Amino acid sequence: MDEAQTLLDPLAELVTTYHELNGSIIPELSECPSALEFMRHVARNRPFVVRGGAAGWKATKTWNVAALKDLLTGQSVNVAVTPEGNADSPTRNEEGELMFVKPWEEQQSFEEFVDFVSKQELSKVPVESVTEVRYAQTQNDNLRNEYATLFSHVERDIPWARIALQQAPEAINLWIGNSLSTTALHKDNYENIYVQIIGQKHFVLLPPLAYACVNERQLSPASYRRSEGGGLKMVKEDGEKVPFATWDPDQEGNETSYSKLAKPMRVTLNPGDMLYLPALWYHKVSQSCSEEGICCAVNYWFDMEFGGSFYPLCNFARSSALAALKT
Amino acid sequence: MDEAQTLLDPLAELVTTYHELNGSIIPELSECPSALEFMRHVARNRPFVVRGGAAGWKATKTWNVAALKDLLTGQSVNVAVTPEGNADSPTRNEEGELMFVKPWEEQQSFEEFVDFVSKQELSKVPVESVTEVRYAQTQNDNLRNEYATLFSHVERDIPWARIALQQAPEAINLWIGNSLSTTALHKDNYENIYVQIIGQKHFVLLPPLAYACVNERQLSPASYRRSEGGGLKMVKEDGEKVPFATWDPDQEGNETSYSKLAKPMRVTLNPGDMLYLPALWYHKVSQSCSEEGICCAVNYWFDMEFGGSFYPLCNFARSSALAALKT
Repeated sequence: MDEAQTLLDPLAELVTTYHELNGSIIPELSECPSALEFMRHVARNRPFVVRGGAAGWKATKTWNVAALKDLLTGQSVNVAVTPEGNADSPTRNEEGELMFVKPWEEQQSFEEFVDFVSKQELSKVPVESVTEVRYAQTQNDNLRNEYATLFSHVERDIPWARIALQQAPEAINLWIGNSLSTTALHKDNYENIYVQIIGQKHFVLLPPLAYACVNERQLSPASYRRSEGGGLKMVKEDGEKVPFATWDPDQEGNETSYSKLAKPMRVTLNPGDMLYLPALWYHKVSQSCSEEGICCAVNYWFDMEFGGSFYPLCNFARSSALAALKT
Repeated sequence: MDEAQTLLDPLAELVTTYHELNGSIIPELSECPSALEFMRHVARNRPFVVRGGAAGWKATKTWNVAALKDLLTGQSVNVAVTPEGNADSPTRNEEGELMFVKPWEEQQSFEEFVDFVSKQELSKVPVESVTEVRYAQTQNDNLRNEYATLFSHVERDIPWARIALQQAPEAINLWIGNSLSTTALHKDNYENIYVQIIGQKHFVLLPPLAYACVNERQLSPASYRRSEGGGLKMVKEDGEKVPFATWDPDQEGNETSYSKLAKPMRVTLNPGDMLYLPALWYHKVSQSCSEEGICCAVNYWFDMEFGGSFYPLCNFARSSALAALKT
C-alpha cells in the first residue's frame, strides 16, 4: 500500500492519523497519578508507566522463591502446562492448521511448581530440549482466592483507579513463570493496571484501532493434554471458533496489507513498576527472570466502560477491518 | 434498511449499537460536577445538563433589556442579518441549489439592535411578513472583547471544566436573538459549556458517530448582502465548498438510508441551566424568548483533545460514511 492508497483508504488513514496524532512514546511518571490525572489517560485510552510506583509494596520488597514457598507452604496451585510456553496462543497442529490452543491445566504443590520453573530457567537448557513449560496464570481473581495468603502484601485495589473508575477491581491476578512463557498478542475488555514484582515483563502494545493490522482470524479451539507417557499432545476441541489476532509484530508471517502501518510500542517493567494498559489494547507479553529464575507480577482488572462512543467506534473499526480483509 | 441489512452493515451497526448502549436520556444534575466527575463525561463524550447551575450568576439574576442597554450604552455591536433567521445554514438559492449561506454582518448600536429583536418578537408578525432577522452571534470570544463590559457578570471560566481539561476557555461567546433565529445542525471541534441567561434554548443533539445519518454534502459558499433598497440578497462566493450536514431531524427531506436509525436527543435550557455539549456532537439550536422578547445565552469553548483514539475514530466513521453514501 503506497501513500496515495493510504489517503484513499479510511482504514489506512485511521492507523496513520492515529500514530501522527499520538506518537509512539509511553509516558513515564515518577509517582502515581491522582484519580483525575488517571481519568485523563482513560479518556484518551493511552498507556503510561509509573516507574517505582509499587516499590514500597511488601510484595516488591520481600518476595523471592523462599518467601513465596514459606507463604504458600503445603498449598496446591493450578499450573498451565504447554510444550513451548505458548498458552492461549495461535499454534499450528500436526496438519498445519492454525489453532487457538489452551494449556493443559493441572494441580501441583506450589513448591514443586516454583522449583521446576526456577530450575528450568537457571539450567539454561537449549530451547529445543525443553519438553514442557509451566506458568501459574489463572486469570480468575486468583490473588483473592488461590493465592489469598499473599494478598495482604499488595494493595487491595489501586486507589486512583478505583476512585476514577468508581469500582473495585473485578479481578486481581498473580502470574509466576519463567522466560520460556510468552503471552500471544491479544486484547481484554478491561482497564488493566499491571504491577511487576520480581523479574521483568516486556510488552509489545498496539492500540485497539489497529484491527486491520493484526489479522484477526477465526481459529478452531484446541488444548494440550498430558498423555500417559507424560508428554503433551494437542487435541482439537468441540465448540465455536475463536476470533484471535494472528500477526506477531516480532515475526515474519501472517501480515495483512495494513500491518506495516502499525507502530508497535514497547516497554519493559522492572520490579516495582506499574503499567496502565488501557482497555482493548493489543498486548504481547514476554518475561525475564530474577537471578533466582522466576518472574512474578500482579495485575488489577477493572471493568471497562461500554457506554459512550469508544466501544461502539472500536467495534465499528473492527467490523470494517474484517469486511475489508475478507474481500 | 431492514434489520437483517443493519446487522450486515458496519455503519448501521455502529449507530444502533451506540443507541442500545447509551440510551437517549440526557442526565440532569442538580449541582455542578467536580472536575473528576466532569472528566468521566468527557471520557464518554456524553452530554449532561446542570439545572440551575448558573442560577446564582449576576447575569442570570440581573440581565434584562434595560440592564443590557445600560451596560452597553453607546456601543456598537456586530449583528448577523438574514431574511429568515438562517445564519450559517444550508439554504436553496433562486436556482434551487443548496448553498452554505453566511449572514450579512453590520455594525449597529446595541440599543437599536436589541429594540429591533425585542419588538419583532413581541409584535408577533406572521413569519411570511418578516423581511429580516437579527442575531448577535459572533463566535469570536466576543464576551471578552466586544461585550467586555458584561464579562464580570458571568464566571471567568468554568472551574470544573478548566481543571479537568487543564486549560482556560479558548473563547467565551454571547448570543442575543429572538425566536426567529435557528442555528442549523452542525458540529464544532470544541468541548462546549452552554449557559442560558434569558429565555430558552432548544437543542436537538446527535452523537458524532451518526455521520451516516446527517447527509453531509459539499455546499457552495454564499452570503447575504444588503442591497441599496435595504433588502437582503444571496450572493454566491468564491472559495472552496463547505462540508455541511444537510439533514434536519425536524423536517422531511435530505434523509440518507441511515437517518431513521438516528435517535435525536432533545433538551431545553431555562435561565440558569448549563449544558455540557461534548466535542463533535451535532446540534441544532432554536430559541424562545423572555416576556421582553429576547433570548440570551453565553457559551464557553474549550479546545478538544485530538490525542487518543476518539478523534481518529470519529474521522474514520465520517470517511466511511461518506464513502458508503457516495457509492
